[in-house]
Amino acid sequence: MQLDLIPGGFVLSLQGREILRHTATAPALFVGKGEERMDMYRGNFDIEDYVVERTALSHVTVSGKRIEFAVAEGLPARFALTIEDNHILTTALDSSINRVWLRISAEPDEHVWGGGEQMSYFDMKGRRFPLWTSEPGVGRDKTTEITFKSDVSGKAGGDYYNTNYPQPTYISSRKYALHVETTAYSVFDFRRDGFHEIEVWAIPERLELFTADSFIELVGQLSSRFGRQPKLPEWVYGGAILGLKDGENSFARMEKMRAAGVKVSGLWCEDWVGLRHTSFGARLFWDWQANETRYPNLREKIAELNNEGIRFLGYVNPYLCVDGPLYPIADEKGYFAKDEAGKTALVDFGEFDCGVVDFTNPEAAAWFAEEVIGKNMLDYGLSGWMADFGEYLPIDVKLANGVDAKLMHNAWPTLWAEVNAKAVTSRGKTGEALFFMRAGFTGVQAHCPLLWGGDQSVDFSRHDGLVTVMCGALSSGLLGNAYHHSDIGGYTSLFGNVRTPELIMRWAEMAAFTAVMRSHEGNRPRDNVQIDQDAEVLSHFARMTSIYVHLAPYLRKLSEEAAATGLPVQRPLFLHHENDRNTYAIQDSYLYGRDLLVAPVWQAGQSERTLYLPEGETWVHVWTGATYEGAQSVTVPAPLGQPPVFYRASASDTSLFEAMRTL
Amino acid sequence: MQLDLIPGGFVLSLQGREILRHTATAPALFVGKGEERMDMYRGNFDIEDYVVERTALSHVTVSGKRIEFAVAEGLPARFALTIEDNHILTTALDSSINRVWLRISAEPDEHVWGGGEQMSYFDMKGRRFPLWTSEPGVGRDKTTEITFKSDVSGKAGGDYYNTNYPQPTYISSRKYALHVETTAYSVFDFRRDGFHEIEVWAIPERLELFTADSFIELVGQLSSRFGRQPKLPEWVYGGAILGLKDGENSFARMEKMRAAGVKVSGLWCEDWVGLRHTSFGARLFWDWQANETRYPNLREKIAELNNEGIRFLGYVNPYLCVDGPLYPIADEKGYFAKDEAGKTALVDFGEFDCGVVDFTNPEAAAWFAEEVIGKNMLDYGLSGWMADFGEYLPIDVKLANGVDAKLMHNAWPTLWAEVNAKAVTSRGKTGEALFFMRAGFTGVQAHCPLLWGGDQSVDFSRHDGLVTVMCGALSSGLLGNAYHHSDIGGYTSLFGNVRTPELIMRWAEMAAFTAVMRSHEGNRPRDNVQIDQDAEVLSHFARMTSIYVHLAPYLRKLSEEAAATGLPVQRPLFLHHENDRNTYAIQDSYLYGRDLLVAPVWQAGQSERTLYLPEGETWVHVWTGATYEGAQSVTVPAPLGQPPVFYRASASDTSLFEAMRTL
Repeated sequence: MQLDLIPGGFVLSLQGREILRHTATAPALFVGKGEERMDMYRGNFDIEDYVVERTALSHVTVSGKRIEFAVAEGLPARFALTIEDNHILTTALDSSINRVWLRISAEPDEHVWGGGEQMSYFDMKGRRFPLWTSEPGVGRDKTTEITFKSDVSGKAGGDYYNTNYPQPTYISSRKYALHVETTAYSVFDFRRDGFHEIEVWAIPERLELFTADSFIELVGQLSSRFGRQPKLPEWVYGGAILGLKDGENSFARMEKMRAAGVKVSGLWCEDWVGLRHTSFGARLFWDWQANETRYPNLREKIAELNNEGIRFLGYVNPYLCVDGPLYPIADEKGYFAKDEAGKTALVDFGEFDCGVVDFTNPEAAAWFAEEVIGKNMLDYGLSGWMADFGEYLPIDVKLANGVDAKLMHNAWPTLWAEVNAKAVTSRGKTGEALFFMRAGFTGVQAHCPLLWGGDQSVDFSRHDGLVTVMCGALSSGLLGNAYHHSDIGGYTSLFGNVRTPELIMRWAEMAAFTAVMRSHEGNRPRDNVQIDQDAEVLSHFARMTSIYVHLAPYLRKLSEEAAATGLPVQRPLFLHHENDRNTYAIQDSYLYGRDLLVAPVWQAGQSERTLYLPEGETWVHVWTGATYEGAQSVTVPAPLGQPPVFYRASASDTSLFEAMRTL
Repeated sequence: MQLDLIPGGFVLSLQGREILRHTATAPALFVGKGEERMDMYRGNFDIEDYVVERTALSHVTVSGKRIEFAVAEGLPARFALTIEDNHILTTALDSSINRVWLRISAEPDEHVWGGGEQMSYFDMKGRRFPLWTSEPGVGRDKTTEITFKSDVSGKAGGDYYNTNYPQPTYISSRKYALHVETTAYSVFDFRRDGFHEIEVWAIPERLELFTADSFIELVGQLSSRFGRQPKLPEWVYGGAILGLKDGENSFARMEKMRAAGVKVSGLWCEDWVGLRHTSFGARLFWDWQANETRYPNLREKIAELNNEGIRFLGYVNPYLCVDGPLYPIADEKGYFAKDEAGKTALVDFGEFDCGVVDFTNPEAAAWFAEEVIGKNMLDYGLSGWMADFGEYLPIDVKLANGVDAKLMHNAWPTLWAEVNAKAVTSRGKTGEALFFMRAGFTGVQAHCPLLWGGDQSVDFSRHDGLVTVMCGALSSGLLGNAYHHSDIGGYTSLFGNVRTPELIMRWAEMAAFTAVMRSHEGNRPRDNVQIDQDAEVLSHFARMTSIYVHLAPYLRKLSEEAAATGLPVQRPLFLHHENDRNTYAIQDSYLYGRDLLVAPVWQAGQSERTLYLPEGETWVHVWTGATYEGAQSVTVPAPLGQPPVFYRASASDTSLFEAMRTL
């Protein structure tokens, strides 16, 4: 980085890109004090800040690589930045400061991406993004009835920025990336002309900057920084992971689907732990071991499945219910987070209470990895699981490491991922056992082998439907999460909103062109149509699994590429077409590797789709063989079963792609 | 006021009441800079502030009555307060400042009232109140379907603090009042312990302080400060003002109601100007003169009515539609507010455009008072009118006085009231012609003889129904608005929400114990039951008008008292029971003068009501004669027709009150 003095201030640049520009009249740094109000309702937060003070630090003194900031000349410096290679270290010189606002130089036509896994807006320019892990919300659009009803019934409606996986990192179209190393509540505000404003409710550790000549290289740097996932397990290429939670009946239903031509790589039964019956309906029993009542002889059945090349997957989360056998063991060892009074903190999950295993206690984390995940799951025969929650750490518990839970809240998903990864590693199953998470934060990349896009509503809605999964894949993919997938057919069915056969089929068409195909019965299986209940859906799904399996050689190469370079499987169009700025804001189509362009139909009742083809390539429409030159919008027919997919005419695998037509 | 120096600061007191306490570590003053975003949608505003700077001015220098504030010793002062008698003058010494936050000392158990006409919360402690005149909202409760639908369809749902009549003035239970003299957007924040925070989006002119040994005296001081209304016109005591908008059919309907026993003082026909037919339904024709088509021979009919002791009232607002005859006259004279380009600014009111008469131009104001209200209304024979709007001044117009429309927006209701009052005065009809307004701001008291509570929904809802009218009467009454009334039966019927007979009857029961009884057909007369369409409602209404007329001698005394002392007709219980703190937060019952306590039934399906009777009196239940000692909650039967009303056993008018039983 280069630090240049100018009258009354300085300019800090990174390989010719201006990052900070400070003068007395246009200061780059504000500090102050806030008093936050944070209320949590089952993973949804109501957060408000009373900004008591926000003071411009107008006067700077530069000595070497250290910049000291004061309110005015002659007053003591209140803050310092130290420039080190590609880092900016931040130091508060005044202990009253608990808010920092930093203005990063911006250009009017700049685009910004990232912020973790963002579900509504891929290009973040023009909007403000609080970064705090939480439930993403149901509906996520204050103009919809579903959002309204969710807000009223449980403050659960959410908004465009709510996500299970925030991360204070962005990539700019100016070909640099900026990461704020902090776990505090922070905000990226891209609404202003001339600057991006970064707000942190603490003194951040540092700002990290990255730059490269190409976006591909930049993404590779971020992957190296945050951690790289292993290759996909070989077994995944065998077909879809079927999500069923029907007790032992799940096996028969799977066989029926296989008989109908569905290619299956795994059977995922989240109810493997058994059920609890509440007034809200059946819930899982939050004690993590096989339930012989619901799944008799499960160990043997898993072995039989494995013999047929099919894996079995389960479910786990970081809580233990008070009425399960694991709770007293962990409680006796003091492994739970505590309340104000020093007793085990109990969290109400709806007619049952749980303890929170305190992963800041290395012993507790090791115990959970070895005794729970290691012995009860991996040793039992599970090849994977949903590692749920992670975004729920209550902000008022007391933790073993002594750090304020408000500062550990965002860190929790990564700690949770680490516990899961440690268990997998202990059994030598890295790259073989596959767990998937929706929650994330900085560093989750190093531990979590697969993201899933969280709980979409079972619809085509703009902010909580099928289309949001692409946004989640693209934004998280740029930050080093190579593998993303979602619940085929969506998850959340509330207030009479139910799946249509069309929705499942459109979702499956998209999922065939992602890292992993996995279905889910949703939160209300009996109220919603299931894949095996509709002949047309079943047949369509079978064909999509055939396409997925057909493309396995290509996906395997993408996985090798991901492991080698950190490039994600699903990529924004601009990643390979960085000179075509028309691609910069596209979030409803993506490259599946460099060679395939996928533009899923994400609205109901469509028979065609319009999409943009990037410049510099000739694109071949998979189903018709029609060719199109890039740098134009085209409209193609898109009946059910023919999602708009194109391949590069100059790709090496064209025969593989052409052969999709015959499936 | 007394200014005492303490280490590092000062304490400012008013007759022993601490108002400001400043030290270096707990400063009382913050200044800074904000960049507001204000979007208006037909009288509803979406407002957000980007606080760029908020700096504590910790260091003070006191010399005589002037206090200068700086960030730190040795730095130039940025702000000054000058203490003069009961005023605090504010002076910015730094031209960049456009936000001021002042912390007023507060006590934990303090109550605060005022803020103009507040419709949801009478006791403002614990909440934040932006003060900006606007539509009050439909539903005004983000948890209700009506609010949600209103928000989605027109950003019109509103919230608890939205009001047609805000005023930056409050009364504290510590027996002082504080007024901020400014027309800028401001906020009273009563949520903190230890201080109230006053926020102003400009440099206020000054803070005015009032104190007295009793609340009654304090209210009298405010009335003297803001202006006092004349006595009610004698004709009002004759009965209800019937709101009908049925063209000439209105006369026949009035006669039918009179024949059914309804006592009538006036007939109010807002459609006297004729109708415009839009896709939303019939709207008034916004050109202010009698419409011969809709009301043939109106002048003669008014004269006939007057002979029977009944007055005729109309409607006016500060806009002129482009297709009416008045528009070209005003436009030719240049009387309209201008747009950026210097042309007449046109405001879309829904399929028709209007000009805004620019009341900052004295010629335009005089023209409107003389030519429109004077000649077309008063000289024509009108005895009163609804002076509607006032809260709609667009914030982007250019005004003749050169002041930013954002600073004139709050001032507009008072300017509008002044135009109306000037017309009335010019005809010598002060205290005789009665216009009523919903919009208000500081000083409206001096011009507007009667408030009306705005457009409630036609329901019993907590934040937009019958009960809110009491809150409006009590809060505005404390600030010198002696007379308040409302639309009997409510006004706004949207999304299938319609009046019930019960609602009209309960509303009439309350209205009989207010300054003026007036009915309204509502925004959708044909979808909602009307008083004359239901025999039970009609008979009930007739009886309530008899009670109103029966109480006229008492009301006349209250009116004389109001003119003499500024005491409102409807009073919070604590006004006469200031030692009984149980009364301080009561907003669903009121004193109608000192002698009557009225506790209207404001929920549906009630057969009794519980209410609190203040200490120090024996209270007699009007309908049963049962007596109760004060200082207790009592539950009394409250069938339709017997609103819970009590009189003081020691009152001088007990025989008048007793006689209500016979009506």
